[in-house]
Amino acid sequence: MKVVYYLVALLALASSVAFAYDPSPLQDFCVAINDTKTGLGPGNTSNPLGSKVSPVTVNEILGLNTLGISLARIDFAPKGLNPPHTHPRGTEILVVVEGTLHVGFVESNPNNRLFTKVLNKGDVFVFPIGLIHFQQNVGYGNAIAIAGLSSQNPGVITIANAVFGSKPPISPEVLTKAFQVDKNIIDYLEKQFWYNNS
Amino acid sequence: MKVVYYLVALLALASSVAFAYDPSPLQDFCVAINDTKTGLGPGNTSNPLGSKVSPVTVNEILGLNTLGISLARIDFAPKGLNPPHTHPRGTEILVVVEGTLHVGFVESNPNNRLFTKVLNKGDVFVFPIGLIHFQQNVGYGNAIAIAGLSSQNPGVITIANAVFGSKPPISPEVLTKAFQVDKNIIDYLEKQFWYNNS
Amino acid sequence: MKVVYYLVALLALASSVAFAYDPSPLQDFCVAINDTKTGLGPGNTSNPLGSKVSPVTVNEILGLNTLGISLARIDFAPKGLNPPHTHPRGTEILVVVEGTLHVGFVESNPNNRLFTKVLNKGDVFVFPIGLIHFQQNVGYGNAIAIAGLSSQNPGVITIANAVFGSKPPISPEVLTKAFQVDKNIIDYLEKQFWYNNS
Amino acid sequence: MKVVYYLVALLALASSVAFAYDPSPLQDFCVAINDTKTGLGPGNTSNPLGSKVSPVTVNEILGLNTLGISLARIDFAPKGLNPPHTHPRGTEILVVVEGTLHVGFVESNPNNRLFTKVLNKGDVFVFPIGLIHFQQNVGYGNAIAIAGLSSQNPGVITIANAVFGSKPPISPEVLTKAFQVDKNIIDYLEKQFWYNNS
Amino acid sequence: MKVVYYLVALLALASSVAFAYDPSPLQDFCVAINDTKTGLGPGNTSNPLGSKVSPVTVNEILGLNTLGISLARIDFAPKGLNPPHTHPRGTEILVVVEGTLHVGFVESNPNNRLFTKVLNKGDVFVFPIGLIHFQQNVGYGNAIAIAGLSSQNPGVITIANAVFGSKPPISPEVLTKAFQVDKNIIDYLEKQFWYNNS
Amino acid sequence: MKVVYYLVALLALASSVAFAYDPSPLQDFCVAINDTKTGLGPGNTSNPLGSKVSPVTVNEILGLNTLGISLARIDFAPKGLNPPHTHPRGTEILVVVEGTLHVGFVESNPNNRLFTKVLNKGDVFVFPIGLIHFQQNVGYGNAIAIAGLSSQNPGVITIANAVFGSKPPISPEVLTKAFQVDKNIIDYLEKQFWYNNS
Repeated sequence: MKVVYYLVALLALASSVAFAYDPSPLQDFCVAINDTKTGLGPGNTSNPLGSKVSPVTVNEILGLNTLGISLARIDFAPKGLNPPHTHPRGTEILVVVEGTLHVGFVESNPNNRLFTKVLNKGDVFVFPIGLIHFQQNVGYGNAIAIAGLSSQNPGVITIANAVFGSKPPISPEVLTKAFQVDKNIIDYLEKQFWYNNS
Repeated sequence: MKVVYYLVALLALASSVAFAYDPSPLQDFCVAINDTKTGLGPGNTSNPLGSKVSPVTVNEILGLNTLGISLARIDFAPKGLNPPHTHPRGTEILVVVEGTLHVGFVESNPNNRLFTKVLNKGDVFVFPIGLIHFQQNVGYGNAIAIAGLSSQNPGVITIANAVFGSKPPISPEVLTKAFQVDKNIIDYLEKQFWYNNS
Repeated sequence: MKVVYYLVALLALASSVAFAYDPSPLQDFCVAINDTKTGLGPGNTSNPLGSKVSPVTVNEILGLNTLGISLARIDFAPKGLNPPHTHPRGTEILVVVEGTLHVGFVESNPNNRLFTKVLNKGDVFVFPIGLIHFQQNVGYGNAIAIAGLSSQNPGVITIANAVFGSKPPISPEVLTKAFQVDKNIIDYLEKQFWYNNS
Repeated sequence: MKVVYYLVALLALASSVAFAYDPSPLQDFCVAINDTKTGLGPGNTSNPLGSKVSPVTVNEILGLNTLGISLARIDFAPKGLNPPHTHPRGTEILVVVEGTLHVGFVESNPNNRLFTKVLNKGDVFVFPIGLIHFQQNVGYGNAIAIAGLSSQNPGVITIANAVFGSKPPISPEVLTKAFQVDKNIIDYLEKQFWYNNS
Repeated sequence: MKVVYYLVALLALASSVAFAYDPSPLQDFCVAINDTKTGLGPGNTSNPLGSKVSPVTVNEILGLNTLGISLARIDFAPKGLNPPHTHPRGTEILVVVEGTLHVGFVESNPNNRLFTKVLNKGDVFVFPIGLIHFQQNVGYGNAIAIAGLSSQNPGVITIANAVFGSKPPISPEVLTKAFQVDKNIIDYLEKQFWYNNS
Repeated sequence: MKVVYYLVALLALASSVAFAYDPSPLQDFCVAINDTKTGLGPGNTSNPLGSKVSPVTVNEILGLNTLGISLARIDFAPKGLNPPHTHPRGTEILVVVEGTLHVGFVESNPNNRLFTKVLNKGDVFVFPIGLIHFQQNVGYGNAIAIAGLSSQNPGVITIANAVFGSKPPISPEVLTKAFQVDKNIIDYLEKQFWYNNS
């Protein structure tokens, strides 16, 4: 049985290494590209947040494996918000393709300073890895942004959803103490519909 | 004053980098150790959260520079809480040294599943990089935990403080839409005293 | 003058490293953003190649230091070409914002297979680190692409410029043997105007 | 057969990537945690060295995979020694939980300087990656330390065991010349029972 | 079916991790070494370039997996050339074992400066990752060099072969514009026999 | 004098970092190469070990900074030994240029298996990062090897020198217990002249 075990191990190794760098994976990669051709059309912003994130990560293009980068398109209806969130595994660099965005991020403890900026078409902004950040459309029409992220699978944690909408919910003992409010407020927050735009 | 600032920055840089690899830095390293000798005594938990984090990062021991690891001691009074937070630059592995902790973390979008566990003395738990997590003392006496973190400077973002206590505050347009509540609730949340235990 | 040079180097270092992790650098970071606000307007494509690359790397935004990502906008006149080049320190993920591009890359030895694709608005393509690649506008109007790169300073090596336009030139003994042609051809290639669009 | 090959490759890839970051692995991770619940109880120090290392690495918790950190508890009887060893793949940061330890490490060639320190409860010390280090209980009672290590699988090389107790033994020609002693001494050293406390 | 899936995933993971660091892989590694014993004998330089590269990468020794290094021997007949090429995933450090080499590399845009040197037996030179470089024998007899590369699989892109010998060829629209010459020259360049010496 | 020291440190830092990526550093890099031109001539093996290591690391060529690789030449007189040692920060890949070597390494705990091989001219062997390894000339004449290492500054720890020749010595309580021998043996081992061949 040991022989079989090693064989599987070798195939797994050989193939995964091959995947990342070698000729045949590059071919697979192009096939994968085919599948995502319509991936970055306009996102549907008809939702409570008025925004939609369309990611292109290793989940959409297998060929991104080991290459350390991904992309996203973000669409905003007027007043649309990409709510406070973090990327646990990536820094984001964003460029406004259309419209005007109010963007910001909060530095870590102990200061928790907020840095904001109004970005117009062509403006670029950087959200360092793991920091809480947001973007809101403050122009009259729709807005579009393209973001590069420094990971093949950066992940997204929408703060409201993770804290007040987890499944199952975080215990009220934790949340009432963490936010220093009574259980009614926590219950109220948890009752909202936590729409997930990404 | 800016000149002084830069000079300090330069000295810090020069010494800390030299530190990591050269003979003399190793000597400096031991001096630095001297300075932190009392760093991990019992933390003062007389605060609204009933917990205290005592970190040992590159800010406390310059010799940790480039070595990719740090440590923290966490003290909990009965019912004490280390509230939901993330480490933007590190995974945490925690061992309970005394007492009983209820711990948990929330996976990223789209599922936001909550994983929790009750840990007794000697139990170990892992909080993957960037995920929101918390620990609460659910035993009768005090509790103590030691945590290793996979960065010389992992950072801490206490969610409540960063979202509702940033300086200046995040605009109400962002927060009301993000949490789907009216401005009164947001105002109320922002009025609490955001104690920072780390 | 050497002293001045070093001093500048030192200041740059101190501030940029401080940048990545410390509170005050985050403030500097926003200042830096201000300076690049007009950086990604339309590039001037009135040149022999009919294309223009506008990069946003750590050279344009100091705050990108240590964050492992950068961005570029590429403008194409009709038939405009971003000629065969490599990024020695980064993978590129590109999305077409406007127009139609014929793109391709060549895998490494021994097969040197060429992979090409025609991309329309919204299509995404990946150019793995270090491989020779190109993009050409094959539509009727102008074309625009946004590219994310997996390095704060990925570098660009335009093959024609580096091989036939280096300063000083590579010796004819090397080039005639490498390309298996006589010196006249090499001389002719070296006499062209090597416009650098990036 | 090529099809099968690719299929295995894809499964391997998909699953290993999923493992590291995705929801289901996190669930596996929690199961794994269950199994190690008693892993860090008191170690049995009834052995020639009077010490016992209880590691928690990716071998004990599969969920640590790709997360770059591990932990160990070290128990010491009075005079107990964790003998000179290295971690080929990790830096160690150690905190004394109980008792008093004499600790030290030796810098690399050419100076081979020894840095030592006596640590009491709460004191912290750093052993840089790959350097030879040791800890000895120099207090009256038992001692306990917790160590974080900057790798999911840092490895341990006990110098005495690897040099004089390898299987098969290193040839006497090598050892007599390396230690500049005659074969009797080497034979004597190799005859000892090389107890492995980790 | 899910069970099977996870089983494969676990085996894959376990084995690949084991492979890199653990006992049994080390044994496989030694077997692999056996197979390459004659790998670095004299290379056959009877070819249009008068040189031959004999690599020892993870493709030749599976045990190099995850270890981040490889090696090559380069043989040169008199006037033999290792033509302009890049390593997309590695820096090269080269030492001349026999003979005299004229070596050079070209920095990236915008300056494309050429740095050259004549190396005699024992001389060392560094070619930074991704930069175009070459070596030519300018002595009277044969020459031999040994090169270390900072990747288990650095890859080789011979510029002439990748640009003028890809399969299928890069479109003439791209090449005529890129090199600013007419189609006849491109056709002529593409008609040469593109010998691949590595 | 401390001020001078820091100033030098600062200059070194500024220039070496600038080095890795910028145009002018590449020029400095070539200057640095000039200085090492005679670095890899035959090493003097007239010493107790009969071997000599001549390294080319970032300490010899500043231009190696950030490039993750270095090189060494090892000369052996007949029976000459490169004694058991580790590289705390690098894997080694070695090729025999002349002669016959008996080489080996010991895997880590708990098995401490020894893997050895006799290498002739042209044979290649890999010593994984941090493992104890050695090479001995078992042929009739001199032997020469070239080794690549996966770090710009891999470091060397000669086991005998670090354990029995550190300055100051490791305490006899530690060494007698670690090697399970009485103090006479330890004293004897410490009295040898610990020649440092690297």
